[in-house]
Amino acid sequence: MLKLYYAPGTCALASHIALEEAGAAYTTERLDFKSNQQNSPEYLAINPKGRVPSLVTDRGILTETPAMLAYIAQSFPQAKLAPSDDPYAFAQAQAFNNYLCATVHVAHAHKARGARWATDEATFADMKRMVPKTVGACFALIERDMLKGPWVMGERYTICDPYLFTLAGWLEGDSVDIATLPKVADHRKRMAERPAVRKVLAEEQAPA
Amino acid sequence: MLKLYYAPGTCALASHIALEEAGAAYTTERLDFKSNQQNSPEYLAINPKGRVPSLVTDRGILTETPAMLAYIAQSFPQAKLAPSDDPYAFAQAQAFNNYLCATVHVAHAHKARGARWATDEATFADMKRMVPKTVGACFALIERDMLKGPWVMGERYTICDPYLFTLAGWLEGDSVDIATLPKVADHRKRMAERPAVRKVLAEEQAPA
Repeated sequence: MLKLYYAPGTCALASHIALEEAGAAYTTERLDFKSNQQNSPEYLAINPKGRVPSLVTDRGILTETPAMLAYIAQSFPQAKLAPSDDPYAFAQAQAFNNYLCATVHVAHAHKARGARWATDEATFADMKRMVPKTVGACFALIERDMLKGPWVMGERYTICDPYLFTLAGWLEGDSVDIATLPKVADHRKRMAERPAVRKVLAEEQAPA
Repeated sequence: MLKLYYAPGTCALASHIALEEAGAAYTTERLDFKSNQQNSPEYLAINPKGRVPSLVTDRGILTETPAMLAYIAQSFPQAKLAPSDDPYAFAQAQAFNNYLCATVHVAHAHKARGARWATDEATFADMKRMVPKTVGACFALIERDMLKGPWVMGERYTICDPYLFTLAGWLEGDSVDIATLPKVADHRKRMAERPAVRKVLAEEQAPA
């Protein structure tokens, strides 16, 4: 039985949706970021990076969203969530997810997580001011070059879709106008209608 | 025939070494970052992100180091550069590479690439001051928890090794004392002795 550690409003949503879409048998444990539970000794023993998501498997603990998404796809091949038998197509999916992780999420993180990289209040304010521009530029590139439609990789729904849906959910908070991103907006709308997504959001948004 | 776009001193070194270790047939093209060639119209047509590495294949162009490294490993399975037949072990390797990409490289980038996330000179100075601490903390975690030894994943050399070698090559520039990281230092030394690494470094360090 797999166990996912997540916190509401975080990128862990992508792996949560993927587990549901895969038909995996799994349980979840919600962390309370407000009380800094991700840095408690108990959780640091699970993930010394103090981040979510973490996925407990019967062989050990996995972290890092793109790696976890590929693991979920490859562990439940009948769900066909990644083109694992085609190294080029698989690399395309991984490259998309990696861009979300290392560039888009990082751009977003400069709004509220500036203390990861600096110490001064003036720095945090400067970082925050640029977030609409940097996140907006990332999503403009996704809209123009990456999102093939109707799903990220084209006709087939893959592990790229819940990850894009997760980060696209932060656009309003980052003051990026989704009206300038019609393909992303359409993707987000169709994702929100999927039964797996509705089920996972209902759980994550339920009172603790 | 594969073609790698790289620039000296960048994370493209990891993919360059992996191609050489895999025994791939490939050519390279060096970009001149001093003249901002990565943002030329010609290169943006190859990689609209304006970054290296890019890998031209007969099916299209791949970007993002962790995705490219996995592609190289899976395209040349006889080189056994990744445990592709074991989803859990493969995810462990991908998680390691993803941490290098999305956390370690990002921490390092705040030294010289602050303009990606901010505009003020005072911000850049604040970011730079923190780099020894943030990169040092990342490598302390790698030293303590991640680098199994003698190679990253244990007994077998994988696509994690050239990537770690690449980022560990930036430690002195980031004012992190490698003497505090004996396993990383030992890894770097053994990597530098490998024929593939020597050959690639000789090419990248040759005058343009």
